[in-house]
Amino acid sequence: MKTINIGILGYGIVGAGVAKLLKEKQELLTSRIGAVLNLKTIADIDTKTDRGIDLGTTALVPDAQKIINDPDIDIIVETIGGETFAKEFILKALENRKHVVTANKALIAGFGNDLVNTARENQVDLAFEASCGGCMPIIKSLRESLVANNIKSMSGILNGTCNYILTKISNDGSEFEDALKQAQELGFAEAEPSLDIDGYDTAHKLAILNSLAHGIKINLKDIHVEGIRNITPVDIEFAKSFGYTIKLLAIGKMHENHVEARVHPTMIPDTNPLSHVEQSMNAIAIDGDATGQTMLYGHGAGMMPTASAVLSDIADIARNIICGIGGRVPILGYPEENIKSIPILPMEELYTRYYMRFEAQDNPGVLSKISGILGDNKISIESVHQKGRMDNGNVPIVMITHIAKEAWVQQALKQISSIDSVVGIPVIIRIEEIIQE
Amino acid sequence: MKTINIGILGYGIVGAGVAKLLKEKQELLTSRIGAVLNLKTIADIDTKTDRGIDLGTTALVPDAQKIINDPDIDIIVETIGGETFAKEFILKALENRKHVVTANKALIAGFGNDLVNTARENQVDLAFEASCGGCMPIIKSLRESLVANNIKSMSGILNGTCNYILTKISNDGSEFEDALKQAQELGFAEAEPSLDIDGYDTAHKLAILNSLAHGIKINLKDIHVEGIRNITPVDIEFAKSFGYTIKLLAIGKMHENHVEARVHPTMIPDTNPLSHVEQSMNAIAIDGDATGQTMLYGHGAGMMPTASAVLSDIADIARNIICGIGGRVPILGYPEENIKSIPILPMEELYTRYYMRFEAQDNPGVLSKISGILGDNKISIESVHQKGRMDNGNVPIVMITHIAKEAWVQQALKQISSIDSVVGIPVIIRIEEIIQE
Repeated sequence: MKTINIGILGYGIVGAGVAKLLKEKQELLTSRIGAVLNLKTIADIDTKTDRGIDLGTTALVPDAQKIINDPDIDIIVETIGGETFAKEFILKALENRKHVVTANKALIAGFGNDLVNTARENQVDLAFEASCGGCMPIIKSLRESLVANNIKSMSGILNGTCNYILTKISNDGSEFEDALKQAQELGFAEAEPSLDIDGYDTAHKLAILNSLAHGIKINLKDIHVEGIRNITPVDIEFAKSFGYTIKLLAIGKMHENHVEARVHPTMIPDTNPLSHVEQSMNAIAIDGDATGQTMLYGHGAGMMPTASAVLSDIADIARNIICGIGGRVPILGYPEENIKSIPILPMEELYTRYYMRFEAQDNPGVLSKISGILGDNKISIESVHQKGRMDNGNVPIVMITHIAKEAWVQQALKQISSIDSVVGIPVIIRIEEIIQE
Repeated sequence: MKTINIGILGYGIVGAGVAKLLKEKQELLTSRIGAVLNLKTIADIDTKTDRGIDLGTTALVPDAQKIINDPDIDIIVETIGGETFAKEFILKALENRKHVVTANKALIAGFGNDLVNTARENQVDLAFEASCGGCMPIIKSLRESLVANNIKSMSGILNGTCNYILTKISNDGSEFEDALKQAQELGFAEAEPSLDIDGYDTAHKLAILNSLAHGIKINLKDIHVEGIRNITPVDIEFAKSFGYTIKLLAIGKMHENHVEARVHPTMIPDTNPLSHVEQSMNAIAIDGDATGQTMLYGHGAGMMPTASAVLSDIADIARNIICGIGGRVPILGYPEENIKSIPILPMEELYTRYYMRFEAQDNPGVLSKISGILGDNKISIESVHQKGRMDNGNVPIVMITHIAKEAWVQQALKQISSIDSVVGIPVIIRIEEIIQE
């Protein structure tokens, strides 16, 4: 029976998860794949800490080059993270004609086009199922299952930390800062949480998925990104009263000559299956022109769910090695020559519906002033909601607009902010309906 | 550029959907796969009816043998349905060393082991993604994405007709017969609805999925099957009051020396994501030991969702043909020699919780008699609910049990039915909790 040798770069949480599966599931994997997946070497600066895994004959070494330059190793798993060493090691590994599997979303989102080219030039595979949505088979779905579909739109809850915090605010009425603190205490948020809560992690994943869905180059820099720091229990309560939930969504849509790619808190109706995705769970809804609405749901992070996705990539590559082939499915779903360059719609060009909340001193003229400014900016109001009074005596005024252009809304908000009796910065949350088929 | 020739047997709804995608998405498919998927011939007895598809150079012939014996055809799509001609044609096609793609769940569930053997002997692929869950990539997930997981359990809403009817009863309080009639009028149910509403269609799918999930031979005959004919608005209302929803579930679970495989109406808590799957939508929750809970959601039937799944199989096979390989992924997920024969647990051996509803004449002693019989049969009661009075003056008595054995429950029900003041046949609905990780 053939033996396929594997090396892991980075023996942290995910690296240890991959090692655990390769060791503990060796019999299962061999029985399914018909070859032995042999974890030959793991490299990590820390060779001392016990990760609780019986490594048997697997070597644990401090030097990554021991793996990258080992002629016996067929597949290298990169679980270092970050964009410096990981990038250098992956490039070197690809140049040494090793297949590479990574969970590194920041790296693929930031440098994926280059890495893909290097892989192609060296006729090896670069696989990254674990980079988006943890164990959900979203990349395989886009590259293989949905092959006959034009993807009209995707919307995803792709960051467990944000979803946990939003669920917490929604269920307990916590303020954002308290919910974040709790999430940190429970290990759902990092001590330095910006990557998650400011939306960048979600944007990394969207950049990758948008490329695969639409056959375009990976483009991170043009994605509009907003996080969840400004979401308050008040907005969540208003949303509930309208039959809506607030989620941090990654939204990607295909149009004639451009794509939409944006990450921001979004109000979705309770009839949207994403609205029931709670706690730290992830989900992505995909609307293909043949399939209609579909959704994948699962753990978007964590040691074993992520490791499971890495193993699915390893198995794919192993099956190719056994058959003596490579490049069976193009890395980005399309052969390079068919990958288009389609621009991302500038945010100010977006048309959508808006939830707006203003905090105003209880002044008889303020509603008229606000609606006047909205009207002057061509924004048509669907409904107005004013109820209760805040602790400071001010009143919240909530408006739902009909479809309006982002540029008009931003202009109107600037003007409304300058009204004397409007306090603080107005809140806007974009509304996303389910596309009816 | 390579051309791969395809023939379709059966030009009904699904066959026409496949033809439509092959014709209208030719450019997309060529740009992704790097080969031309050429629909050479379609065979159907009816060569006259206009299906609204521009066939161009594709021949429409009345004789299936024109496809089966055509040396130029690489892949044959079977969309005839049924178990007679379809089986004969598929066997002949496999023997002629054609790859076969089918959406025929009854055939795969009933004769899959033989068909798989024939495909293997002739070193061709047999693919059936469209047989289970329409466009949801459930078969690809089990065979490829979850490769490093032992599947602890699966539970699926796999029949859109049943889910539509149950949603209707739940939302409108309709009786079953009225909901069925409406479903038939709207095209969600067949004129002869038994295959769907009596659970057989769901059982076909479960037989296939259980095989793939657990690496066992396809076994349809030992699956316990109950349909939804006896579900009443009363039971759905009781379920709601406990925070539960009633769904027709396919349940598959792995144990040490046996598997569970059963299809029946099931009460699931509102915290189970399956409880939010409404109307004719399908979903399947899979609990892998590495992934934890995951779920796929989508249209389980219909012309284009089914055709999309057929095309994903065609693309997989085409990519293998281009690479000059076959049998890259074993048809049932494991090579034949590693497929186990594990028995399905006899239903009477099942342990689960039960919802029971008795209709009783308002007789002071009846509650004591019922609970006495349950106690004598070792069934422990978690809660008792008696409220309101039915139109006929009788009272509904509802009990939720702790975990009990099916054999005890059936024995107790027989005894309870013989109590004079108990009217009609008691209703039982099994309760399925989410497995906590």
